[in-house]
Amino acid sequence: MAEYEYVGMPVEEIDTPVLLVALEALEANIAKLARHFRESGKQLRPHTKSHKTPAIALKQLEAGAIGITCAKLGEAEAMADVGIRDILMANEVIGAKKIGRLMELARRCDIMVAVDNPENLAQLEEEAGRAGVKPRILLEINIGHNRCGVAAGSPAAVELARAAARCQHLHFCGIMGYEGHVVDLEDRAAREGGAHECLQRLVDTRAEVEREGIAVEICSASGTGDYYLSTTYAGITEVQAGSYALMDAAYGKLGLGFEYALTVLTTVISRPSPERVITDAGLKALTPEHGLPVVKNHPELECHALSEEHGRLRTLQGTSSLQVGKVLEFIPGHGCTTVNLYDQLYAIRAGKLEAIWPVAGRGKVR
Amino acid sequence: MAEYEYVGMPVEEIDTPVLLVALEALEANIAKLARHFRESGKQLRPHTKSHKTPAIALKQLEAGAIGITCAKLGEAEAMADVGIRDILMANEVIGAKKIGRLMELARRCDIMVAVDNPENLAQLEEEAGRAGVKPRILLEINIGHNRCGVAAGSPAAVELARAAARCQHLHFCGIMGYEGHVVDLEDRAAREGGAHECLQRLVDTRAEVEREGIAVEICSASGTGDYYLSTTYAGITEVQAGSYALMDAAYGKLGLGFEYALTVLTTVISRPSPERVITDAGLKALTPEHGLPVVKNHPELECHALSEEHGRLRTLQGTSSLQVGKVLEFIPGHGCTTVNLYDQLYAIRAGKLEAIWPVAGRGKVR
Repeated sequence: MAEYEYVGMPVEEIDTPVLLVALEALEANIAKLARHFRESGKQLRPHTKSHKTPAIALKQLEAGAIGITCAKLGEAEAMADVGIRDILMANEVIGAKKIGRLMELARRCDIMVAVDNPENLAQLEEEAGRAGVKPRILLEINIGHNRCGVAAGSPAAVELARAAARCQHLHFCGIMGYEGHVVDLEDRAAREGGAHECLQRLVDTRAEVEREGIAVEICSASGTGDYYLSTTYAGITEVQAGSYALMDAAYGKLGLGFEYALTVLTTVISRPSPERVITDAGLKALTPEHGLPVVKNHPELECHALSEEHGRLRTLQGTSSLQVGKVLEFIPGHGCTTVNLYDQLYAIRAGKLEAIWPVAGRGKVR
Repeated sequence: MAEYEYVGMPVEEIDTPVLLVALEALEANIAKLARHFRESGKQLRPHTKSHKTPAIALKQLEAGAIGITCAKLGEAEAMADVGIRDILMANEVIGAKKIGRLMELARRCDIMVAVDNPENLAQLEEEAGRAGVKPRILLEINIGHNRCGVAAGSPAAVELARAAARCQHLHFCGIMGYEGHVVDLEDRAAREGGAHECLQRLVDTRAEVEREGIAVEICSASGTGDYYLSTTYAGITEVQAGSYALMDAAYGKLGLGFEYALTVLTTVISRPSPERVITDAGLKALTPEHGLPVVKNHPELECHALSEEHGRLRTLQGTSSLQVGKVLEFIPGHGCTTVNLYDQLYAIRAGKLEAIWPVAGRGKVR
């Protein structure tokens, strides 16, 4: 617990800037998605890159998630440290040091890792053999995002699946794809149309692999903006959505029915004119790449710019009576990268501090 | 020292992503600006918000800086912890908790703080009296940036100076302004023209305060893009430049003669096609708001996008022979906010690891 804060403290007394999570909203979001997956008969493996916070991952698992997804080893290690056992490392793990850490994780939990090239596969096979472990493998398929991944439906994809299935020290489990270029499109038709194209590529690739006689247990895809499409595909078994838990202003525009759980508490530090309100949260307290923050409960105020340490607001009409010292909450444009700026998350219930959670997956940059 | 790294390790063996500082470039930048200030007879009080690293602040002081500038109390406390004694807290300090920390700092060092409103001034006076300390005060003047600050040349500015000069427990030292809206303009005429306008407002305000019989010892302004203009004004005594030490791709476009000292070391993790190179440094390893990173020593490669954990490069012509596992260096678009993502800075000399410095001003968000 930080020096000045104590359980039960009213939120408006917490020193700023600080990252808050409203527990009612968080729990409602987790419950809503859990219900969808129970009803659809598919599995949810939430991406913890969005919150990097073991306490939240545990709530997701408690609500029925099959396991978790991580973006990097540091996150996976932090999650394994609290006893989480079923972890998908959804990026390629490259280099001897990181592969060593992966094998160490394989001793502690049931790790599964993405692979998109044969040299990396061969290294993993060799090191797993040496370590006496048998990590699970998913092939990463490029289904249109054009980032990592073997091209969907390519001979290279089938060839890599064959090589993976032959490995003695790796358990080939299936494939994954991520339609990251469409998942957050505000235009619903564009988002859903784009997602269907990508998901079809993924299930087609699954079918090609299976035609080789290779079993595909897991086929994983999608995010918060299109999870409900993935669950309509017979060939897709699980979903990696993550942002739904905390939400942010960019995803809020999609009208998905999740609540804003994440805010940055900030103090008015200057009122240089009746129309201008300057606060103490800037680019070092929240990130701008998906848009500027929204001021919660103050529709008359607009954040028009962020300096490094200043939020710069103006009134949309007339003047504001907000005084220096008053606290506001910003709903960040992009939750995932905003969380990455903080070491702690202040959990609030009924307007009071309930706990301070370590963002344990941060700090370990790698 | 991190688990895997040791002094003397060649840079290409360091695990990624990690933030590097090239000591030769850092020291050249510090020496260049120190020379300018020696020759101009003005004082440099470098802004440590850019690096948040006590080891770098100490080098700046050793080279002749009069003291340092900080953006928040957490930075000032980290700098005081290594024995730095002359510190300008160049933002308003608002609220009882933060004012308490400021008074604690006033016991440990010669702190100076920005003020832009009478209520805050009265609170500082009261708390300083209670604490038995006498911190220094600078009035923040809005010289055109339209962020915090009393309007330049306004009756309110003179009135606040009078009130500050009357305080028994505060030492009124003068005024500061920051032309943050022009300091990084790439167009030199626009930058210098805009800066001159702002700096003239600052020295005019100084003259108005002095006409009231109030002594102005310190008049502080400017950054890396226009420090050399401030030093031509008789009425300006010191400069707050900070980015010059580490530099970044955005400031690099200004042609100021500083070297790139800051890079993010990143590993190629996927080569999905001959034209595409995917690395392990994305939005959680460097910030995009001042532009995408430049790939050092690889003019044939362009970073066209950053995902959360991926740098996405393409070849500008033809194909690339870079293999998975190869390391590259990104020059970040914005150094100050990139440093804010890291707990440690890897100091490199002659291509080898010389030290791992704590970014001690980070983490303490407030």
